[in-house]
Amino acid sequence: MRPLEDLLVVDFSQFLSGPLASLRLADLGARVIKIEKPGSGDICRSLYVSDLILNGESSIFHAINRNKESFAADFKQPQDLNHIKKLIEKADVVIHNFRPGVMERVGLSFEEVKTLNPQVVYGEISGYGEHPAWKSKPGQDLLVQSLTALPWLSGNQDDGPVAMGLSIVDMLAGTHLAQGILAALYRKAIHNTGAKVEVSMLASSLDFQFETITTYFNDGNVLPVRSKNNNAHAYLGAPYGIYQTADGHLALAMGSIPVLATLLKCDALLAFTENKFSLRDQIKTVLADHLKTQSTSHWLAILEPADIWCAKVLDYKSLFSEEGFQVLDFVQEVTMGDGFSYKTTRCPIKIDGEHLVSSKGSPKLGEHNALILKEISDGKN
Amino acid sequence: MRPLEDLLVVDFSQFLSGPLASLRLADLGARVIKIEKPGSGDICRSLYVSDLILNGESSIFHAINRNKESFAADFKQPQDLNHIKKLIEKADVVIHNFRPGVMERVGLSFEEVKTLNPQVVYGEISGYGEHPAWKSKPGQDLLVQSLTALPWLSGNQDDGPVAMGLSIVDMLAGTHLAQGILAALYRKAIHNTGAKVEVSMLASSLDFQFETITTYFNDGNVLPVRSKNNNAHAYLGAPYGIYQTADGHLALAMGSIPVLATLLKCDALLAFTENKFSLRDQIKTVLADHLKTQSTSHWLAILEPADIWCAKVLDYKSLFSEEGFQVLDFVQEVTMGDGFSYKTTRCPIKIDGEHLVSSKGSPKLGEHNALILKEISDGKN
Repeated sequence: MRPLEDLLVVDFSQFLSGPLASLRLADLGARVIKIEKPGSGDICRSLYVSDLILNGESSIFHAINRNKESFAADFKQPQDLNHIKKLIEKADVVIHNFRPGVMERVGLSFEEVKTLNPQVVYGEISGYGEHPAWKSKPGQDLLVQSLTALPWLSGNQDDGPVAMGLSIVDMLAGTHLAQGILAALYRKAIHNTGAKVEVSMLASSLDFQFETITTYFNDGNVLPVRSKNNNAHAYLGAPYGIYQTADGHLALAMGSIPVLATLLKCDALLAFTENKFSLRDQIKTVLADHLKTQSTSHWLAILEPADIWCAKVLDYKSLFSEEGFQVLDFVQEVTMGDGFSYKTTRCPIKIDGEHLVSSKGSPKLGEHNALILKEISDGKN
Repeated sequence: MRPLEDLLVVDFSQFLSGPLASLRLADLGARVIKIEKPGSGDICRSLYVSDLILNGESSIFHAINRNKESFAADFKQPQDLNHIKKLIEKADVVIHNFRPGVMERVGLSFEEVKTLNPQVVYGEISGYGEHPAWKSKPGQDLLVQSLTALPWLSGNQDDGPVAMGLSIVDMLAGTHLAQGILAALYRKAIHNTGAKVEVSMLASSLDFQFETITTYFNDGNVLPVRSKNNNAHAYLGAPYGIYQTADGHLALAMGSIPVLATLLKCDALLAFTENKFSLRDQIKTVLADHLKTQSTSHWLAILEPADIWCAKVLDYKSLFSEEGFQVLDFVQEVTMGDGFSYKTTRCPIKIDGEHLVSSKGSPKLGEHNALILKEISDGKN
């Protein structure tokens, strides 16, 4: 039995952050009903990534909205709003990520929803929380990365700011919201009390940097400095980084420089008897020159048996053709209501030895209106 | 009342991924007891980041282990093991991130712990889950990033693989474990059943790439291609990226090129009447040349009023000196048992309008042995 079996989540959220939280709740067993604007629906339906349209919708929409239902309803139509309120009365969880003020304007603020459903867990993602000057700014991933100094941690010292190439802040905010909602559901199960759970993308991006921010505030407010070459973490010394080899790339994590020097037969590296943080650029330069001379498999054959923390850098082709990858069963095929199938990832959490998989694809806009309206008129919802 | 008030978490985990999960449970109200090896303790105590030692321990240890207790005990000593088992009998949650086989060897596998405590929620983080060839590899962040192709998404096309400069995989695995544990606690509250929750760093890194992996598998298995310059997402067209200005850097998210051309008075950009994905390198090059000619504030004054999704790129100094940052109250001072205080971040989740803060710093190794041994002898634990 899935942990969240029999739970109902009414989800007004769009794009990535909110839908990621509800995806995880769906993975864990909840029934998730997306409330979408008739006509256009979740903006993510037409947010094309790589120009890839699958069955009329963007690939990103399909990836994040598998295993959910869609109820098309317009806040501005009294009958639709009435249906939405009926759903909310039966919901365990309500989620939204509108800009500040939107839920208040339609009469669905936490206070108002509580009058419909006193034990509701109401989850909300904002871009910038209480930040006075920023709270009306668009809560978009790259912009929050930039405003929270994140791009000064990746890439090399002279690269300028380098963005992390995935929507990391959206994803973290979504996982934090899911954590808060799950904790509130636990408390609800014990004490029968509702909760308001709030997460901002800003706070999620700052929490992500908890180690570097803690160091900054206790180390004389010195800005993080990336190494000149082969940087992979502004605060870690050599050899930490990714290195080119004769035929590919090799990652090296923490390790002793004298031990590496001997194993790799690198005389120039033997000069560094101490692995001082201040010497990391010089050490990395010597190492980079040396590692270029042989193939990745040559180096791995030496380093792995000696328990040096190292790995080949794979790409999607080599990763997905690995025999082991098939064993993980990480890519699942899901099927939409109209029979269209596509491949996507599964939930990373395993419970009681079982992967949390579901073969249900993403919903067409309004696909579940008839079903849900019937449940409402039958008094089931 | 915090959601997890009165919950006991017995945490054997070290480094980042597991301790991050238990940090979140502590933030949410649980009592977390770290079980550490006498003498050295959590390896993270001496994993120095930026050579910064605070009160005898690495800054990263302090950042991730605030609000926890430490019980020094050695699995190999029968009396210590007996104490550990007493704690486990009373625990709601047990967490570990040892390499495969370690908990079995000391007699604390899930099956054995269940005989001590049938309703226990047992959470486990591994490096590579069931991957047959990799399961004994070290589960280290940069290595998992490299093996899961993540470094091909950041940086520009000719940069080679660029690591994300924070321990992103550790952090995601920790948040996923916390999600699974919280969901299992909810089920336990309703049905009084325990659970085994498993997360691997490998699965967490793949889940992180759910959008790009879904696109890859449905788009003819074509590898993601970063733009030649100003890349911030391999699958997003121009202008998505970070651009140099005359005095700093400006981030631009999604937006219409003809609208930008007019606003920025960039004639060369007017040539691009269509924002084709295939033209992104040319568009970005024109834009990059143009944006260099004026200051960041000049461009923001034009773009923000027109609702273009843009932001300044801040660094820690400018971010933390922002007036709004103080309002967020994101940096808190915590105090250790010996009176030593340090600054660190708080939990990003807000519940019932309250930030989840705690003034308790990280524990000294074995700091709570006397207290916990007394509780055990009093039959409280």
